[in-house]
Amino acid sequence: MSFAKRIDSAIMKAIAEGQTAPSPAKLAEALHYAVTPGGARIRPTILMSIAAACGDKHPRLADAAATALELVHCASLVHDDLPCFDDADTRRGKPSVHKVFGEALAVLVGDSLIIMAFEVLAKAAVDAPERAIACMRVLAARSGMPNGICAGQGWENETQIDLSAYHAAKTGALFMAATQMGAIAGGQEGEQWEELGARIGEAFQVADDLRDALYDEDTLGKPVGQDDLHGRPNAVTQLGVDGAIQRMRDILGGAIASIPKCPGEAMLAAMVTAQAEVLTPIKWRADQAAKIAGE
Amino acid sequence: MSFAKRIDSAIMKAIAEGQTAPSPAKLAEALHYAVTPGGARIRPTILMSIAAACGDKHPRLADAAATALELVHCASLVHDDLPCFDDADTRRGKPSVHKVFGEALAVLVGDSLIIMAFEVLAKAAVDAPERAIACMRVLAARSGMPNGICAGQGWENETQIDLSAYHAAKTGALFMAATQMGAIAGGQEGEQWEELGARIGEAFQVADDLRDALYDEDTLGKPVGQDDLHGRPNAVTQLGVDGAIQRMRDILGGAIASIPKCPGEAMLAAMVTAQAEVLTPIKWRADQAAKIAGE
Repeated sequence: MSFAKRIDSAIMKAIAEGQTAPSPAKLAEALHYAVTPGGARIRPTILMSIAAACGDKHPRLADAAATALELVHCASLVHDDLPCFDDADTRRGKPSVHKVFGEALAVLVGDSLIIMAFEVLAKAAVDAPERAIACMRVLAARSGMPNGICAGQGWENETQIDLSAYHAAKTGALFMAATQMGAIAGGQEGEQWEELGARIGEAFQVADDLRDALYDEDTLGKPVGQDDLHGRPNAVTQLGVDGAIQRMRDILGGAIASIPKCPGEAMLAAMVTAQAEVLTPIKWRADQAAKIAGE
Repeated sequence: MSFAKRIDSAIMKAIAEGQTAPSPAKLAEALHYAVTPGGARIRPTILMSIAAACGDKHPRLADAAATALELVHCASLVHDDLPCFDDADTRRGKPSVHKVFGEALAVLVGDSLIIMAFEVLAKAAVDAPERAIACMRVLAARSGMPNGICAGQGWENETQIDLSAYHAAKTGALFMAATQMGAIAGGQEGEQWEELGARIGEAFQVADDLRDALYDEDTLGKPVGQDDLHGRPNAVTQLGVDGAIQRMRDILGGAIASIPKCPGEAMLAAMVTAQAEVLTPIKWRADQAAKIAGE
């Protein structure tokens, strides 16, 4: 089965288990709404790729870890979209959860998804309890306080921001969770995979800056320019579009260099290289092609 | 060490670990604010009592389970107090978290506490991984969807309420988590301890109805009469004050009868009997005494 099918099937199974009757119908519907459409499922795909590259020793745990990671990511999107945070009307090209179901259900959706994430890992622990627990510890550390995405959001409420801690928590945390949980489920130790996750996270942040600069809200399916309000350095503002593209490619070069020794090392390097293409906005590539054609 | 000291020390350790520098100071402060003052710590005390009655085989896990349960309970209070739910200005006799720190931080406090709950259990898993995982499964089932306190809150957004599922999720879930996690940490299986938790939960609900009927907001430190809005049957409305007291004592009698065989069976029965006294409002006892004196 492809990674995409494995991930989608595992996520849908988790959501279905949260809807066994009798359960409150609107909250059940809102949970499903919050995790669909899947889109690229970038974080769980990275996780699965690394589990596979490490030998995919515990495939059921890899499925669970990928699901748990995506559920926490979706929870963070639902809560971040709330009026007290970004007050976003749209997400993934459709109305945000609180716009459709109201604020109370949006809060409950986030809470339920976080709990479900750890439940999925606990349920998958039968085969390899120590590895499942290691995955939970990584997921908790990358989600909560003081180093996870909650901390990242928390920094936005401070007047004095520790920029390095803020960036790591806000943009890197769930990518580090992806590489580390993937390695753990695959059969390796998680620690040595932190750098790869951090670098991929950085590259995605630059790619986000590029998309915000090159596209409008309709194309992105979410409001643009949200992050600039919080003083986070923007790669395009600092380096220009071409400079930011070069920066992103440099970061991904560093990511490739950081890949630990594993059976699928070459496959992973190829995957990261391919990401550089995927993350380069089509509009920029079209502009480049037009420039060359005009020369 | 007394249960109260063990619980308080374990909770404060978890909160302190979430504040290792650098971390966003306001969110860190809000986390501490949300779990203090401790008050009765009813749920973790029940958990510890049952772990002790079962033999306290894994004391570190009992500490972690008690902490995790209280953190989830505190998270639910913080989110329930939000304007989109109960819009409560006070909690435990002081301003609610969102009143002091704002809504965004209140959302993050709840999220961080839920994550911390599972992290605490994962960290304590070293000694007894299978038992820690069993505790996590119980905690998740009693917190999330479809049977946990999130589901309980979710029912309040439905026009057609399944009253039995709603009561079990809203008032019973965390008490069932307390008895089951206590038993698991203590060395027994959790299943047979479900009924005791359910009955204690029922008794506390009747005690809540009594307190709402007999005391005002200033005495309780929280708004009164919130639950009646959602069509939950109120024991005092149905049975009168004296009838509700009798009902509560009957429920606790059933709770005692349901206690599974364990080394500390007699101690637990005595504890539940003592709870009947604690849960009987002082005002009612004073009124009874006055009646007798006047006869």
